[in-house]
This record gives sequence, structure tokens and C-alpha cells, in this order.
Amino acid sequence: MKKQIRFNGFTLNSVAPHSPGLWRHPEDQGQRHGDLDYWTDMARLLEKGKFDAVFLADVLGIYDVYGDSPDAAIEHAVQVPLHNTLLQISAMAAVTEHIGFAPTYSATYTEPYKLARDFSTLDHLTKGRVAWNIVTSYLKSEAVNLGLGDQIEHDKRYDRADEYMDVVYKLWEHSWEEDAVEANRETGVYSNPDKVHPINHKGDYFSVPGSHLVEPSPQRTPVLFQAGAFEKGKAFAAKHAEALFTTLASDLDELKAFTKEIRERAVDAGREADDIKIFPGIVPIVGRTEEEAQEKYEELLSYVSYEGTAAMLSGHTGVDFSKYDPDQYVEDVTTNASHGFLKKYSSSTTRKWTVREAVLHHGLGIGATKVVGTPEQIADALEAMANEGDADGFNIIQAASPVTFEDFIEHVVPVLQARGSYRTEYEASTLRENLFGAGRVRTSNNHPSKKSVGLYGVNV
Amino acid sequence: MKKQIRFNGFTLNSVAPHSPGLWRHPEDQGQRHGDLDYWTDMARLLEKGKFDAVFLADVLGIYDVYGDSPDAAIEHAVQVPLHNTLLQISAMAAVTEHIGFAPTYSATYTEPYKLARDFSTLDHLTKGRVAWNIVTSYLKSEAVNLGLGDQIEHDKRYDRADEYMDVVYKLWEHSWEEDAVEANRETGVYSNPDKVHPINHKGDYFSVPGSHLVEPSPQRTPVLFQAGAFEKGKAFAAKHAEALFTTLASDLDELKAFTKEIRERAVDAGREADDIKIFPGIVPIVGRTEEEAQEKYEELLSYVSYEGTAAMLSGHTGVDFSKYDPDQYVEDVTTNASHGFLKKYSSSTTRKWTVREAVLHHGLGIGATKVVGTPEQIADALEAMANEGDADGFNIIQAASPVTFEDFIEHVVPVLQARGSYRTEYEASTLRENLFGAGRVRTSNNHPSKKSVGLYGVNV
Repeated sequence: MKKQIRFNGFTLNSVAPHSPGLWRHPEDQGQRHGDLDYWTDMARLLEKGKFDAVFLADVLGIYDVYGDSPDAAIEHAVQVPLHNTLLQISAMAAVTEHIGFAPTYSATYTEPYKLARDFSTLDHLTKGRVAWNIVTSYLKSEAVNLGLGDQIEHDKRYDRADEYMDVVYKLWEHSWEEDAVEANRETGVYSNPDKVHPINHKGDYFSVPGSHLVEPSPQRTPVLFQAGAFEKGKAFAAKHAEALFTTLASDLDELKAFTKEIRERAVDAGREADDIKIFPGIVPIVGRTEEEAQEKYEELLSYVSYEGTAAMLSGHTGVDFSKYDPDQYVEDVTTNASHGFLKKYSSSTTRKWTVREAVLHHGLGIGATKVVGTPEQIADALEAMANEGDADGFNIIQAASPVTFEDFIEHVVPVLQARGSYRTEYEASTLRENLFGAGRVRTSNNHPSKKSVGLYGVNV
Repeated sequence: MKKQIRFNGFTLNSVAPHSPGLWRHPEDQGQRHGDLDYWTDMARLLEKGKFDAVFLADVLGIYDVYGDSPDAAIEHAVQVPLHNTLLQISAMAAVTEHIGFAPTYSATYTEPYKLARDFSTLDHLTKGRVAWNIVTSYLKSEAVNLGLGDQIEHDKRYDRADEYMDVVYKLWEHSWEEDAVEANRETGVYSNPDKVHPINHKGDYFSVPGSHLVEPSPQRTPVLFQAGAFEKGKAFAAKHAEALFTTLASDLDELKAFTKEIRERAVDAGREADDIKIFPGIVPIVGRTEEEAQEKYEELLSYVSYEGTAAMLSGHTGVDFSKYDPDQYVEDVTTNASHGFLKKYSSSTTRKWTVREAVLHHGLGIGATKVVGTPEQIADALEAMANEGDADGFNIIQAASPVTFEDFIEHVVPVLQARGSYRTEYEASTLRENLFGAGRVRTSNNHPSKKSVGLYGVNV
């Protein structure tokens, strides 16, 4: 059997989540993100396309580094307005049966005891279709509004996150024994207290003596997603993540090096190389001919907002892009801010980029690889990234919503299905099984959720 | 026109929320509370009954005062397992058009900046049908697991809650001007930054400099529910609440004194006497004849768990009921614990109660008045409480779920409708309009949400 490719639909509860300015595109419907129909339609669409999950990004602040002001982000709807990511999930779950839901939820601004209850609730309501995209928040505009005063220092964020995971694992996996709920009308015992264990956690960052509030859900621990780019982030992902999002994909060698490193690190952490599914982000732009696809790309690009994208980049990098002359070449502005973004464009061997061109190019899908072509060409490119680059699948990022998803599902998915490299039916009904194979409903035994403490030994 | 009575369906995301032991009743379906169908069916049922809202109670800990252990609560499913209250709402909203949703959410364990986003999101998704039942949490088992170490001292909780309200009002009412969202494809302006104001809040408990993350929702501020029993709680309710839940109802004089006091306090706080809708909780038990109703009451009572109810009461009062002899008369055990619960039964003029009898009686609907009789008798009692006791409506508390709601909607609602004291159609589509009249979508101008700061003057 050919290697199977997988897809998540990448979005966020905002107007034009990952392509600033595209809300002006005539086909874009992102302005409907406050309507339940928008979400239930999207869930049905992605399930029709046999996607693994709806991936919901999130932040808790407004990008305000650009010009030292939130104005550009507000004006261009750069992830603001920004609604909660968890609250529309039950409506989406009610109209679907297989697709999973992978909301981002910050480990920085929710106590683990509470987050554990939220995800257990969702896992029950969706019958085992929920994932958690773990983030440790990075915006100063988040910290100052949420009682932290200032951000937690980056490296400390991961130490704290490591302990955070320990707490939620104890709650999800080690507090309630599998048969703790007896619901026996004769004996009158609903849950057997001898099988519900307080976790007695006392660490550097958290103190959680009690037992979990929720009985075991289908998956117990939600499928764990993460975006790992930094050194500490990679180590964290290799240890915990079951699915990893990366924006690396344009260069096959770079992708190959990345997937190889992550899988080696996973093995070093005592896991199997394929215990982490790696999903590069891509923006697919489909045409009946190569020319039509190229024209569509140019047309979409014409809607990207320079200022909006620059505001987002300033937030992501911490560098104020309002200080750059858009018409300078990128290699001339790297002196005092040689961060990843500019370096990528200044080292391009195919052409010279101005700041404006680089920003606009980045604006369509937050720097993700644009895969432009006929359905067959796109299928070829994805197969190459999967087979040579060793990617497991792709996070499909939208230029305009939901038309990017619609075009991809209508035109590219059938080609991959005909080639035998994409499912025609879901394998199972829980998210973890659809990702790892029927029968694997729970985290595997080599995962730290199982290993960190003895099952039900937490109160000994 | 006769005074119109209103109803909320009172529940909680647990097995047998307010009647410990009733999960053993053959008709009880509370064990399905992890299924979306359970909630969507309930929302449809209550909308068929023209209820104002589904009221969702919540706590964040396990009752562990009884015998200094959580075991009794766990064994008898006394509000444990306990799932999140917000997460099933969007599925309920998707299958209904008019009914509102009033989830409890603790102001103690969520930053106001985040809570404001959550409720604005729900208000958008439900198109203006959301309320917030404000609580300041009281269980030690909540505090110790959620990073507080110990509870906030009771009176301080309300000072903090007052400032909390100030912050969320600023975010909901004073940050985004009504026409801030322009979504103008020609000018490229999505939101006008001149009309989105940072709230610059700096107080004793909270610092929130930024602007709200969500554009104005239909109601802006959700309808504000509260349960006010304590002195500070009453003052808080008189100032902020638009709907108030009380367990007082059995004695018409007591109810009358309570409603009078609350309305006078509201007037003292600069509001109208009817700006607060007062909802006593009741457990209706309906029979075709008085005898049948009485038999049904006895049958339901036989399923109440003594230990479960005692565990809940211990949690609510802080007094360990395991130390009482169930067969003692209540007047003989009041010496060192003369709290409200025992006082109520020891001062009964109609009979002498043993601790066991009092606890079991309390167990059906957490001490709410049982209204037992034919549909006409129940309608008579409700009309008396509404007309003489000046209640605006009732929180219907279930003995068994959803059969208490079903019986009430099938048999009592039509009698009240025939008498002209209950709606046959909803007046409008937002919750606040259904409670206060068509056209009143937003908080009124005499409400502190409008008065505390000048609209859009927050950044001056």
C-alpha cells in the first residue's frame, strides 16, 4: 500500500485568519465566523474531504509591535476580532461523525486542573474526536491583559509547560481507573471511591492535590498537537507531541532534515519514529491549467494587505516592520534584525526580493509554501513532500475561506484517492485511531502520559 | 393582561445534579450528560415549553467536607463527574432559535479579559441568547486545585467581584464603538482603530490596559444572573443582576419579604424595581390527581440518597453532617451548628423532623420547594407565588432528568397558557428581550455597565 497522506484544515476564529487582507476577496466568507452555520458548514465540508481534523489556532492578544500600536492589526483584521476557539466545537461535532477538532489552548493562562476538565468534556461530547494544540503564549499583549504583567521567559515557559503536562497526564490517565464508574442501581454506587485517586501533585509551578472531575473519556488524553520551531520547542514536541505543525516545506532537503531530526529526537525520548505525525502547512492554489493556477495566485496575492502582514510579522518576530522601507531589498535591511523571516528571502538563489515583495508573499498563508498548479501537479508536489520529505500530511491553510478548502477537496483530493495515496473512508471513529490506526484509541505505552507515574499509583 | 410567569430549566453538567441518588430512578437519563443528544434534546424540549433559558449551575471542585473526604460525593455522584458548562451550548443553540443559555462561570478562576471574550463569542454564536450566572467560588476543594492555595475571604470575594464586573463592562460596553466594524472592501478598513478603545483599567485586583478582542455582539453584556443569599451577595445582586435565583419560596411571606427587599435595594442602587427578575427554585411533581402526585412524590423521595445529600449539604454549609445521628430530631442538634438548613426544619410548626427526614426532604432539588399536585393545583401555587410573593418566574429543578421537565411542560404549561399567565410564543429572539420586552436587547441605561464610565471615554 502506498504511503497515506493526511490533511487538517487550518483556521482560527477570526475574519481572515492567516492571509491578511483576503477578507476583501469577493469569495471570502470569513466575516461569517460569528455564525454557527459558518462552522457547521466547514466541518461537513472537511469531513466530506476525509480530513483528520479542523485545526483551530489561537492567540489571546492583539499584535501591537508594528508602529508600537495595535492600529494596523485592528484596521486590517489581522486576527482581530478574535473569538474563543473551543465554543463552536460541539455544534460542529453534532453534524459530523468522524472528523476531529484540534483547538489551540494556552497552557500559560489556564490552570491545568481546569484545562483537563475542558478537554475531557469535549472528548466525551465528541466521542473521542478531540486534540489539544499545546501552546505557551508569547505575546506581551496577552501577558499584560491576563494578569501576568510580563511574559514568562521563553525557556522557563517550556519548563513550566513540562510540569503542566505532568499534571494533566495525572488527571487524564492516572486518577480514575477504567472501571471506576459502576453506575449500579442495585448497590447504589455510581463511582467507586476506591478507584478514583487524588493525584497529590506538588511541583515547582503547580499544586493539585485532588482527583480529576471527569470520568475517563474515550481517548482520555486528547491527541496532542504542537508547533515546534525553537530548540526547546522541538525537545518538548519530541517528548509529548503526537502531531506536529511546521511551516517548513518549500525546500525538500530542509523538510527532510527537519522530519529526520524530529523522528530521531522522538526515538531518543523512547518513542517510535512514527509516533509523531508531521504536518507542514501549505496553501494550495488549484487551476484547470498551470496558467489558470498562476493567474489565480496573482489574483489572490493582489488582495494581501502589506500593512496587515507586516503587523502580523512584527507580532510574530518582535521586530517593528514599520521601520523598514518596503522598496529596499531584503539583503540590505538585515543588519540589525537578521531573524528567520528576512534571512529566508535574502538567501534566495532564484531572485532578489524587496521587503514589500517578501511581506506580500509571506502574507498568503503566513509564510507557508504555496503549491500552485493543476490538481495533478499539486498531487505530485504533496507526494514528493510525503515520500521524499517524509511528511505525514499537511495542514491546509486558506487564502480565502472556505474556497481554498472547497477547491482542494473538489479537485485535488479525488486525484490523490485515485492514486491510492489518500483515504476514501475513515478508518475509525476516534481521532487518534484515524491518525494512528484502528484500535489505538489511547496514548501508546511509550508516551510520557503513561510513563511518568504508575497508573493509579499517584496517591501511593 | 395578567402577570406573565417565566421559567428557566435548572441543571448542571452532571449525572443527577440537584437530587442526589435520583440517578437510580428508572426514568432518569442523567447518565447521558456526556452525549450531545442529551443536551440538544433538552434544549428543544425547553424551547417547546417556551422557557426563557437553560440555567447551567457549576462548581469546580468535589464536596469533601462530609467525613473529611470526597468519597461520599464520588460514590453517590453528587455533582461528580462534573463536566464543563459552556462547551455544549453551541450544539444546543444550533437546534433552537429562541431559548437562552445561562451558564455559571466563576469570576474567581478566570481572568476577566478571557471571560469577556468567551461570553462575547457565545453571544455572537447564539445571536444574543446568552446569560452569565456570576459566581464567586466558595469550595476549598476548588481553591486548592486551582492555584489559590486557600479561598479568597468571603467579603473580599465580592469586592474583587465588583472590580471584575467593572473590567468586563468596560470590555463589553466601552471598548468597541457600535460602528467600529466597517468591513469596507473599497477602503480596505475592516475595523476603524479610532473606534476601538483600550480600556486602560488599573485597579486593586486587575490590570487590563488593552481593548476587547471581540466586536460588539447582539447583547454586548450577557444577561446577568446571580444567586444572592448572603448580605454582600444581595448588595451585589441589587447592583448588577438582571435575574436572581433564590431557594426561598415555600413560605409566601418570606418570599414576599425577600422580593420586596431586593427590589428596594435595586431602587436604592438607581435601578427600577422590576429591573431584576426574581426566580425562586421549585421542584414540580405533577399527578392526574392529588393522590397520584403525592404517591409520585413519595416514590421520588425513596430514591434520594441520605449520604449523598448529607455530603452535598456538608459542602454547601461547611458543617460535617457525618457527625450527626440521622435519627435525632433537628432541634436537638442545633447547638454547635445552627446554620440555616437545620434552623429551617427545627422551626417547623407543622411537624417534628429527624435529621434523616430533613436531609432526605432537602435532597429532592437541593432544598427547593416541592410543588406537588394536579396541573391546576401547581398552576395555582405558582400564580400565588408570582402575584402575592412577587416572584417573576421559577427555576424548574429536576428530581429526575428530563422527566421533571417533560411532565411540567406537558401538563402544567398548557394550564398556565390557558389562563393567560404564560406566553404561547416568544416575544423576540434575544434573551434580554424575552425577559424584559421586545426592543431591550442591551442593558438599560441605569445599569452599572452603562454608568460606571462614559461610553468610549475609557481611554481619555
